[in-house]
Amino acid sequence: MTQTISIGLLGLGTVGSGVVHIIEQHQDKLKHQVGCNVEVKHILVNNLEKKRDVVLNGAKLTTNPDDVLNDPDLDVIIEVMGGVKGTKDYIVQALQNKKHVVTANKDLMAVHGSELLEVASENRCDLFYEASVAGGIPILRSLVEGLSSDRITKMMGILNGTTNYILTKMTQEGAAYNDVLKEAQELGYAEADPTADVEGIDAARKIAILGTLGFSMHLDLDDVSIAGISQVSKEDLEYSKQLGYTMKLIGIANRTGDKVEVSVQPALFPETHPLAAVNDEFNAVYVYGEAVGETMFYGPGAGKLPTATAVVSDLVEVMKNIRLGVTGNSAVLPQFEKKLKNDEEIEAKYFLRLHAKDQPGTFSALTALFSSYGVSLEKILQQPAKEEGVADIVMTTHTVSKKNYQAILQQLHDLDVVSEIKSSYRVEGDES
Amino acid sequence: MTQTISIGLLGLGTVGSGVVHIIEQHQDKLKHQVGCNVEVKHILVNNLEKKRDVVLNGAKLTTNPDDVLNDPDLDVIIEVMGGVKGTKDYIVQALQNKKHVVTANKDLMAVHGSELLEVASENRCDLFYEASVAGGIPILRSLVEGLSSDRITKMMGILNGTTNYILTKMTQEGAAYNDVLKEAQELGYAEADPTADVEGIDAARKIAILGTLGFSMHLDLDDVSIAGISQVSKEDLEYSKQLGYTMKLIGIANRTGDKVEVSVQPALFPETHPLAAVNDEFNAVYVYGEAVGETMFYGPGAGKLPTATAVVSDLVEVMKNIRLGVTGNSAVLPQFEKKLKNDEEIEAKYFLRLHAKDQPGTFSALTALFSSYGVSLEKILQQPAKEEGVADIVMTTHTVSKKNYQAILQQLHDLDVVSEIKSSYRVEGDES
Repeated sequence: MTQTISIGLLGLGTVGSGVVHIIEQHQDKLKHQVGCNVEVKHILVNNLEKKRDVVLNGAKLTTNPDDVLNDPDLDVIIEVMGGVKGTKDYIVQALQNKKHVVTANKDLMAVHGSELLEVASENRCDLFYEASVAGGIPILRSLVEGLSSDRITKMMGILNGTTNYILTKMTQEGAAYNDVLKEAQELGYAEADPTADVEGIDAARKIAILGTLGFSMHLDLDDVSIAGISQVSKEDLEYSKQLGYTMKLIGIANRTGDKVEVSVQPALFPETHPLAAVNDEFNAVYVYGEAVGETMFYGPGAGKLPTATAVVSDLVEVMKNIRLGVTGNSAVLPQFEKKLKNDEEIEAKYFLRLHAKDQPGTFSALTALFSSYGVSLEKILQQPAKEEGVADIVMTTHTVSKKNYQAILQQLHDLDVVSEIKSSYRVEGDES
Repeated sequence: MTQTISIGLLGLGTVGSGVVHIIEQHQDKLKHQVGCNVEVKHILVNNLEKKRDVVLNGAKLTTNPDDVLNDPDLDVIIEVMGGVKGTKDYIVQALQNKKHVVTANKDLMAVHGSELLEVASENRCDLFYEASVAGGIPILRSLVEGLSSDRITKMMGILNGTTNYILTKMTQEGAAYNDVLKEAQELGYAEADPTADVEGIDAARKIAILGTLGFSMHLDLDDVSIAGISQVSKEDLEYSKQLGYTMKLIGIANRTGDKVEVSVQPALFPETHPLAAVNDEFNAVYVYGEAVGETMFYGPGAGKLPTATAVVSDLVEVMKNIRLGVTGNSAVLPQFEKKLKNDEEIEAKYFLRLHAKDQPGTFSALTALFSSYGVSLEKILQQPAKEEGVADIVMTTHTVSKKNYQAILQQLHDLDVVSEIKSSYRVEGDES
């Protein structure tokens, strides 16, 4: 039986050096669990001369990917370099060389996940990607194993730390989006170009990965309907609060029968909902199972050590499988054909804020429109707007199809008494 | 390779019939995951004649345990009958007959867990017990696998649904303990004899199991310092709320270096802490890892289907191991010698409420006592008590050793100006 398992690393940035550090620090514990030694032997880097504050313990550095991918001594390749195009080719090459792969790359898995899992399966190799979804939260493993005897009907995830930090500050401090974003950039919580975060693209990648695994159906980024937080105003958050709601940028994967909906958008949760208590840069995934009911997994969504911990957990899994001679059994290929819900089948409750003429008849015009679509209103709040003769009206609806709701929005827009539709958000986690 | 895995059941009560139901409903999914059929063949019951609303599909019922334990056709025994003494003997017998065991029995695992795991290991059998700790939350699996490359320093768990329901109602409705308990009993949320729940014994069993696994150190019920909620008053909750805290009955397993503390008690959490948002009968386990930081697992702590789901998840794990020929590798025997912290080493913050004479000098006498032990106070709240000339004083301390805190309580008791110490609770989750 193998006495040492040898590792190759693609990338030695923040996460990569975290992985090297954890393996170094946990030699004893890893040996107790897996029964053999583990050694990082070969590392692909951009720059051989760069000064690094990690102890490499004899690992060779190279700038030539083939040195690592074709090294016959290596059992497992850990990919922590990021990127999609070239990285995909490296992983395919590694798998074809019968090397098991652990990756933390959400961009890659969201776009090429199913294809890579097939290559892994063909080569009887393991491909694990726990770190690609929510850093330190073992959510993929929990979906695969812990809930393996259950049918998942819905997943809702706070999957992006930057936007959760921004919304938390806006809510707690009543601050404006642009001010908080600027502060987050200064503190290093947000990128100089924050588009992928604030427009919901990063969260969309992760909910696509979650949906694929949880529903056993190949879902990719194009299947996700995406809205970000850059249009969220202080006023929206104030009115939400008055109605007892907290706003979160949420990835939703929702199944009814054999059809699914996958989306990312800012949505409102009752303040008593566990997702409403997930603050700052933390992530959480709320899962509904037919048998188990509601569960939630909470933790850091990013960060050097949480991400590196998830990578090493995957590595432990792979190493156990190598020792046991059972690699290649763990890739869970999608089992069902993809069927997306159409707009008639997507149902939700909504929060709607608009400016209307402050005059008799306004309300009955509004409510008549909603009832013409069979939609009843749950909460209504009216206040004078700053502008003379204008009322600021906030409403929440009972469940309505997306198709009908969009028709209502269109007709509201055309209604004489309505001067402007200010904002609209889904309301989630409120089963009443 | 085995084409059908055969199961024996000990017990066919609520959880047992849930297990039969899930296996029946998920034949296809189980086969997709494990690659073979699974069949419940033999079931130990108390009464052969009892009418049951579960489809048994050819499984034989018996009142003789040996019929199940010695049935050479069975691969796995699922124990869902409860009880400790006789049940332990059954499980030992099953393991000695080389049958793998899944149990939902917390009483048994808290008392005889380490011993049973040793028997399992000797016989190269799997023994899984996910359902024994928190019903539908896959916490044991997450501790073993997800965080396998991390060192856990602290676990805090809301581990008992009955007490969490009672404290939630007391907090939300300002109701008295006895009234809520009575209501909970009427609704079936609390037993006619609620002692094991309300006095913290049930939670203590679970934190002992968690501590044993998380710290890899054999901890049993006698190692847990236990306080329940029967003395909690409406006033305590009102004052807590005023200071921004929510009370939870919490199991704590805490490690510093190689020494641990294990306890169960009502404790106060800042309202913004995720554990404070765990309401009603829900359970949650908050885990601190050196690398991953803070994570939380939330879900139903009990109930037919959640518990049965956890049992079937364990069963899937066992079946995979059988198919792969790797059973008996999963039992994680405690690795470290047990070392408990003494009272000097157990440190916490505290909430303290007392009645004192409403006169000059009272406050300086109190604060002088605390500072003589080097303890500073964080928050102070004083209000007139109902009784004339008496002040109701509430304080929270900064971190203090249990030894010093108990000495302070003793001296407060003897202090002239103090008429009565009303209550005292640990404050947790507040790292400031």
